[in-house]
Amino acid sequence: MSFRATVLTLYPDMFPGHLGHSLSGKALERGQWSLDTVQIRDFAEDKHRTVDDTPAGGGAGMVLRADILAKAIDHACAGDDRPRLLMSPRGRPLTQKRVRELAAGPGAIIVCGRFEGVDQRVIDSRHLEEVSIGDYILSGGEPAALTLLDAVVRILPGVMGNDLSGVHESFEGGLLEHPHYTRPQVFEGMEIPAVLTSGHHGEIEKWREAEARKLTAERRPDLLPHPVTK
Amino acid sequence: MSFRATVLTLYPDMFPGHLGHSLSGKALERGQWSLDTVQIRDFAEDKHRTVDDTPAGGGAGMVLRADILAKAIDHACAGDDRPRLLMSPRGRPLTQKRVRELAAGPGAIIVCGRFEGVDQRVIDSRHLEEVSIGDYILSGGEPAALTLLDAVVRILPGVMGNDLSGVHESFEGGLLEHPHYTRPQVFEGMEIPAVLTSGHHGEIEKWREAEARKLTAERRPDLLPHPVTK
Repeated sequence: MSFRATVLTLYPDMFPGHLGHSLSGKALERGQWSLDTVQIRDFAEDKHRTVDDTPAGGGAGMVLRADILAKAIDHACAGDDRPRLLMSPRGRPLTQKRVRELAAGPGAIIVCGRFEGVDQRVIDSRHLEEVSIGDYILSGGEPAALTLLDAVVRILPGVMGNDLSGVHESFEGGLLEHPHYTRPQVFEGMEIPAVLTSGHHGEIEKWREAEARKLTAERRPDLLPHPVTK
Repeated sequence: MSFRATVLTLYPDMFPGHLGHSLSGKALERGQWSLDTVQIRDFAEDKHRTVDDTPAGGGAGMVLRADILAKAIDHACAGDDRPRLLMSPRGRPLTQKRVRELAAGPGAIIVCGRFEGVDQRVIDSRHLEEVSIGDYILSGGEPAALTLLDAVVRILPGVMGNDLSGVHESFEGGLLEHPHYTRPQVFEGMEIPAVLTSGHHGEIEKWREAEARKLTAERRPDLLPHPVTK
């Protein structure tokens, strides 16, 4: 069975967005994954379709109501054991490991918050897993959901064809990627490092590993298994 | 002068994507920021409009050519001092601080990589700042560029109106956000914490600070200024 994504949002028109293009778009057309949206406002109870209210305890912004969001979730999740994600800067940071786990599963139900936040009681009672795509603030959960789905869809079986099989990728080996070069041999007086055109595969691997390690130590020492002295 | 974004991409149709909706879309229509795209293929030299070639030293995937990308960048940057970003998992992680710096500046030129990577010589010679939006792999730089722009645009003057002025946000104060609650007072037997409806503003602030600190220690001890004992 293919990966099924259901997104709960106030802006269904934002989907599939960039996921409708390129390889993810072709895979969507071929049915290698599916995407449907649920408009949270459809579960409001007044004629203005209000979904939010002022925060208890005061303060700026508005809070998405627990009762309305719970109804939307219960509707989307009926008889469903897909993971339930809430895109939120308060969440645990998304990792490539979590992306692989999601891609290996049946799909995901993704709640996109807007406003100041979401009532904590719906997060607790509906067991929403708060996921953050990075340490910055977005206009809402939608750009985060689209980003997460892009990461998941690209590794679904058959989506990339054989294009990327065997590619070394940042994080897959715990290190950032080594530098890349291709033709022309000389670009504005700069040559491709000689080792890469030497034909010595052992030396090439050694060079790439050393470069990856150097770059990771410089930019992301937090990714290295052992502390480094700079 | 308003914020000007220029995106270099192989998929111009992915833009403005979700940025064409909601508040960022309205701000775009009002001219509070601008977005244009440059098709990298327009700078190819053969009739197939090839922009990539096999990696020097061997391996899977394809590498975006330095000479062609350099021409696209030079075209986009003529007489321009905007920061030049390359969206890449090898980059320094995007932070809310960098988002604020970008929003305070004239705009950004954003290069979206695809394939296995970009020839290192164009990164070096054109002084591209590699930026990562998180520790996961995307299909290309486009979802990352759209995410970065969403974060920047939402804090441009006038974009959110007064909706979010004074809102406490995750990361702004160095902590994840405290939980939120709103009406109804009782949801499935769960009440709003009594302190929040007490009217004692000092107590409410104290509770929120303590909850934010507790959540940050639990989920993101790396954000805390001092080591915590769990």
